[in-house]
Amino acid sequence: MNTAELTELAQQLRVDSVRAAAAAGSGHPTSSMSAADLVAVLIARHFRYDFDRPAHPGNDRFVLSKGHASPLLYSAYKAVGAVDDDELLSFRKLGSRLEGHPTPRRLPWVETATGSLGQGLPVGVGIALSGKRLERSGYRVWVLCGDSELAEGSVWEAAEHAAYEHLDNLTAIVDVNRLGQRGPTRHGHDLDAYARRFQAFGWHTIEVDGHDVDAIDRAYGEAASTVGQPTAILARTLKGKGVEAVQDREGLHGKPLPDADEAIAELGGPRDIRVQVQEPPAARMLHAVRAGHYEAPRWDKGEEVATRNAFGEALAALGSGRGDVVALDGEVGDSTRTEAFAKEHAERYFECYIAEQEMVAAAVGLAARGWVPYACTFAAFLTRAHDFVRMASISGAGINLVGSHAGVAIGQDGPSQMGLEDLAMMRAVHGSTVLYPCDANQTAQLVAAMAGCEGVRYLRTSRGESPVIYGPDEDFPIGGSKVLRSSADDRLTLVAAGVTVHEALAAADALERDGIRARVVDLYSVKPVDRLTLRRAAEETGCLVTVEDHHEEGGLGDAVLDAFLDGRPVPRLVRLAVRGMPGSASPDEQLHAAGIDAESIAAAGKLLVEEAVVS
Amino acid sequence: MNTAELTELAQQLRVDSVRAAAAAGSGHPTSSMSAADLVAVLIARHFRYDFDRPAHPGNDRFVLSKGHASPLLYSAYKAVGAVDDDELLSFRKLGSRLEGHPTPRRLPWVETATGSLGQGLPVGVGIALSGKRLERSGYRVWVLCGDSELAEGSVWEAAEHAAYEHLDNLTAIVDVNRLGQRGPTRHGHDLDAYARRFQAFGWHTIEVDGHDVDAIDRAYGEAASTVGQPTAILARTLKGKGVEAVQDREGLHGKPLPDADEAIAELGGPRDIRVQVQEPPAARMLHAVRAGHYEAPRWDKGEEVATRNAFGEALAALGSGRGDVVALDGEVGDSTRTEAFAKEHAERYFECYIAEQEMVAAAVGLAARGWVPYACTFAAFLTRAHDFVRMASISGAGINLVGSHAGVAIGQDGPSQMGLEDLAMMRAVHGSTVLYPCDANQTAQLVAAMAGCEGVRYLRTSRGESPVIYGPDEDFPIGGSKVLRSSADDRLTLVAAGVTVHEALAAADALERDGIRARVVDLYSVKPVDRLTLRRAAEETGCLVTVEDHHEEGGLGDAVLDAFLDGRPVPRLVRLAVRGMPGSASPDEQLHAAGIDAESIAAAGKLLVEEAVVS
Repeated sequence: MNTAELTELAQQLRVDSVRAAAAAGSGHPTSSMSAADLVAVLIARHFRYDFDRPAHPGNDRFVLSKGHASPLLYSAYKAVGAVDDDELLSFRKLGSRLEGHPTPRRLPWVETATGSLGQGLPVGVGIALSGKRLERSGYRVWVLCGDSELAEGSVWEAAEHAAYEHLDNLTAIVDVNRLGQRGPTRHGHDLDAYARRFQAFGWHTIEVDGHDVDAIDRAYGEAASTVGQPTAILARTLKGKGVEAVQDREGLHGKPLPDADEAIAELGGPRDIRVQVQEPPAARMLHAVRAGHYEAPRWDKGEEVATRNAFGEALAALGSGRGDVVALDGEVGDSTRTEAFAKEHAERYFECYIAEQEMVAAAVGLAARGWVPYACTFAAFLTRAHDFVRMASISGAGINLVGSHAGVAIGQDGPSQMGLEDLAMMRAVHGSTVLYPCDANQTAQLVAAMAGCEGVRYLRTSRGESPVIYGPDEDFPIGGSKVLRSSADDRLTLVAAGVTVHEALAAADALERDGIRARVVDLYSVKPVDRLTLRRAAEETGCLVTVEDHHEEGGLGDAVLDAFLDGRPVPRLVRLAVRGMPGSASPDEQLHAAGIDAESIAAAGKLLVEEAVVS
Repeated sequence: MNTAELTELAQQLRVDSVRAAAAAGSGHPTSSMSAADLVAVLIARHFRYDFDRPAHPGNDRFVLSKGHASPLLYSAYKAVGAVDDDELLSFRKLGSRLEGHPTPRRLPWVETATGSLGQGLPVGVGIALSGKRLERSGYRVWVLCGDSELAEGSVWEAAEHAAYEHLDNLTAIVDVNRLGQRGPTRHGHDLDAYARRFQAFGWHTIEVDGHDVDAIDRAYGEAASTVGQPTAILARTLKGKGVEAVQDREGLHGKPLPDADEAIAELGGPRDIRVQVQEPPAARMLHAVRAGHYEAPRWDKGEEVATRNAFGEALAALGSGRGDVVALDGEVGDSTRTEAFAKEHAERYFECYIAEQEMVAAAVGLAARGWVPYACTFAAFLTRAHDFVRMASISGAGINLVGSHAGVAIGQDGPSQMGLEDLAMMRAVHGSTVLYPCDANQTAQLVAAMAGCEGVRYLRTSRGESPVIYGPDEDFPIGGSKVLRSSADDRLTLVAAGVTVHEALAAADALERDGIRARVVDLYSVKPVDRLTLRRAAEETGCLVTVEDHHEEGGLGDAVLDAFLDGRPVPRLVRLAVRGMPGSASPDEQLHAAGIDAESIAAAGKLLVEEAVVS
């Protein structure tokens, strides 16, 4: 395509963006119009992609980091023949694949769900990492960013990560249209301001008029031929470009054009230009070895082992068995114990330093390329990446998150380091799996099993040692539980997980000395939860005490109630959890102060049984 | 103090850091030793502070962003006479004020809780904003950062914010000791790498040998006299400085020294140098007008008003009544409706652009200075700041967070913009208050009431219009609820909040047509929850249906169960919530698809009542 044809194509993308938003009665046409030239040149001259084979290993990858510009993306899909005009006009309607913000759950050409700003580039880094370090494929990753979203710190975590890894297969195209949602951005059209920042972080930068198709073409060529560092193209554009009534004007973000017909006429009317996208180069399919044998590490009953240590050993072993397992860590691998994996599988280990958002985003990008990532840090610090976990679930990304140092049981370090909200956060993620093992052999089994789940999976590990209570050949199905104590005379059930399992067992001993038999359930699968076992326990024992090293909201106690929320009678329940704000103290002192140690459990259990008798 | 004396003081801080960690058997002495000269020069020559009057308005403010270096902070407190040696040696023990990471809940000289890295500087920006823009006081904010934590994106959100606001009262002192927890940082001792980044973001930078007390002294002087921009001092240091066995060595993060006695001898033994900290300059006390009259906006019953609109008007009115109320927004003020406040109280409005972490951190900093901040964005995007909210609760910070665009009811924009995890996130925050109004007058009352709560308070608002159902003079106490329908014949109770209140009322009408009387409870106070009303409803009607525009975990349904988790009999319960992954559709279609509209509620209620009859 020559200059005139590229310009025509860009106008078509504008017209179709206006039409789609008009048909929907909502959407972001002005944010699409600013970037139309950028996308037109990309798809017509540089993007290599087989739309019939989105899984082709040689395909370039495109990420719309400014996800609200979906009308532009969908108009480009139409231009390349991937969707037809009828589907384009189904934009934002019930059942349409063309959602307000693009998601890979609906569209095979979308790499990751966007719509929360500042996430596309971080995920793009993960994809580029796969291309460069794992697949060693020649594909290029193009990420279209907005200028507003450069205010997100996650963008600079990504910038740092990409430059450090010399990702010259990655290009960030920044649509500097000067206007955010509510008004001008901090830097307006000062392209230098952005260029200085990217350069300082180690990127090659190119400043360009984002409506000059030839200049854009040259910039893409320069980006593709830049070696050793990623490229950021800073493109000066006008929001609503091409339609006088909206061009470069405030107050028009996220609204259909006031007069779509007039705008379309001003843009030269509809066109029907078809783009022949370049074929991707031949590339070998990624043959990650999924079928390898996992030789789980084994511990003898009675050994004292921290579940984080068991996790580390198990992950290293899983990496030996499966070639598709990769690990990431937020610079605490000596605490989470991913260091074992790093030592044995250095080529599949990604040090993300203290940048949890980028760590989770990179995991999403790696998962998009077929890898099975385990991203690990302290449970408390996974809260830093909450929005990324949320978006991962919208993507349907299969990622494993591992949070160590759960709960008050970590002891002296104090509340800033204690995961006390992580179960609530992870349970509320759509379609998630939440696991919380209490011993080493159980951990080793769950580490491997979680890889087989859909969606976001979370494993919670503990800092301190605990005795091994299960044999190495025991099974721990996801959605199951283990009844550790049971008799026909049980008068209550203690439901625990992780560190509180050991406290519950000691409490059961104490209660038995008082003549009260207690059932003990190890609820290692917090979500999905083992409804049948819990219901049976409720029916047979009448009373339930749940005990967890977590705040009282959203954790184990609430998970147990899931078993009873279909209108059936609910048992008498007492929930023990961390209600105060801990300070520094030893692990035992912490458990006692929080009222979740054996003594507290026994006292609560006794009281509950006595009350049940009275009433 | 001259050079020799400053050097001696720094050695004392090292010795005391080693002693404190040795007494505790844990802690971070090596991270303290690298920064000892930096802190010695600061307290002896530049810091202006009255330790007897931490509330003195002229006091400089110090934030230990690398919170794990608490032994250094506490050793400095000892050197200035704020704590004695016995207390120093209580470090990390049960009941001690000297926790593993410092918190203002325990120590009056601590501005904000740290320990989650990359948060001190963002909060420091909030404090400096108060000094510069609100208090117009001459105090200086000094933030001691680690080099590792510069990998956190939040640091660059803060850098951007500080430079944009020309915070020349802010100095970041970066202890570049080259070593993170698990090994070398990305940039080692390359001070230029950090300086380039800060400069690109608009900061003045100074590179210095962090063990040369005279050079440090000059750097602080230069920082204090720099006008128009914040200063970053990049200090080259050695971790574990002064003790050969640990100095500049890997693998010694977060551990007491292997031989404390030998280390203390090598450092020249204990000293007892007392530092006379400079007096703060006279400054007027901040007289924020708390007692002003709040003239709540009023709406007539039957009007159609979005609760986000009511929030915007109410916040502007509250700002008129109270001079201590300030507002922050993540560049979506036209959506959250903080724009009304921005228009009327521009001097107390802080545009944070799309940087939610920095927005919440700045709110924490402003609260530390006595302001009552309201920080607002889409509910979905508050997840971005989860770790900051968590740390705010550890600080005991009184901040108001407002999340708009709650739930599937937003319609076409799709799941990336829907707050569906926010209630779970906010409920699990220690000591939080969670409010979710359903009409305009209720919103207006709660906006003012939440300012009076302790800790983190959250208000959830809706995008779409809903009818005003309460009069403008009705009271809505926090911890209360409203029974909207009630009779002696009620056979079930519908518990709803926000948008689902209106659906529940319609469902009650439908059920009544089927001969089933249903009570309707508006549970606007999700936490604390109105246990008495819920228990009475359970006793009198037997069956409860909870219905919420939120994922099923951690939200309204779980909040209702709080009323029954003390061992008392629990009612039959059905929980209606968003279980699938929404796409794009109209608000009504979304509510129906999620099974939380009037029709779904009525169907569930009918089934529950029928089952209760059968069983």
